Amino acid sequence: MKQISIEQAAMRIAQALPGDGAFLCVGGKRPNTMTIGWGGLTYFWGKHVFLAPVRPQRFTHPLLEQEGEFTVCVPAPGEMRKALAQAGTLSGRDGDKFAAIGLETLPGRAVNAPVIRGCALYLECRVLARTAFTGEGTDDEVAARAYPQGDFHTLFFGEVIACYAGENV
Amino acid sequence: MKQISIEQAAMRIAQALPGDGAFLCVGGKRPNTMTIGWGGLTYFWGKHVFLAPVRPQRFTHPLLEQEGEFTVCVPAPGEMRKALAQAGTLSGRDGDKFAAIGLETLPGRAVNAPVIRGCALYLECRVLARTAFTGEGTDDEVAARAYPQGDFHTLFFGEVIACYAGENV
Repeated sequence: MKQISIEQAAMRIAQALPGDGAFLCVGGKRPNTMTIGWGGLTYFWGKHVFLAPVRPQRFTHPLLEQEGEFTVCVPAPGEMRKALAQAGTLSGRDGDKFAAIGLETLPGRAVNAPVIRGCALYLECRVLARTAFTGEGTDDEVAARAYPQGDFHTLFFGEVIACYAGENV
Repeated sequence: MKQISIEQAAMRIAQALPGDGAFLCVGGKRPNTMTIGWGGLTYFWGKHVFLAPVRPQRFTHPLLEQEGEFTVCVPAPGEMRKALAQAGTLSGRDGDKFAAIGLETLPGRAVNAPVIRGCALYLECRVLARTAFTGEGTDDEVAARAYPQGDFHTLFFGEVIACYAGENV
């Protein structure tokens, strides 16, 4: 396991999310993944915390609440584009999304959630808190574009308890 | 004005907040600054967004709501330590905190809030949204340490509309 500094992880995440996104994975009886394009690495309560906004209607939402752990798997720039697009389109409700996309998983090292083989950066996170984004006072343009149906995100705050590079990095 | 990439800014912020912190400044009729140690650079709603958690009892809190703009001024590593400590202790309620600490301000380039001379990195932000962190389901240790009086943060989401390096960088 090659360590990567949290500062380097922050840099890569700030680059990846506006680009092709990253995989967020949950474990338990029904492991699943979704593509995230929004969120980021913050420092909160004296800890490095990944902020993951997830809408309530997502299949991953109750799994995150139940499991309380997740991983963020960030491919190298330009890699795994098709898989990221598919993971953002398919729903875990319809079956095993990993198998449908052809993604191989490995067990997380510190959490009970899988990671996706072949990524460049892995964060493993424990949910410390969640809160509803209520949309009060939200900029009109953002509200109209992101929340036309009022389906506001839940903000999941995950303490980063492991941060490492992939095998090929 | 020397540009700095948002990725480099994310890296520096991930380093600064766990360290000595950064200045957050608001403008208007009564400009003020406070030291922030929590928060971070995220990507949300398709924009680079600085997340600033501010407690309701802070003098800066209503100013942020009123003005809707703020700056984040990040000193070079190890610099301005005393000023950061002072800005985190004094309250703007008691007078001009910039003057009390001996901080020289310059006008923001894109927002109606000042920046502090001599820092290494500047972000200028427009508040796109805010939401109350409600504390529901928060980890016991975090709740006991960060919120013994139930004074939960407001989360201010500020779109980064300018990002640049200081003169001496």
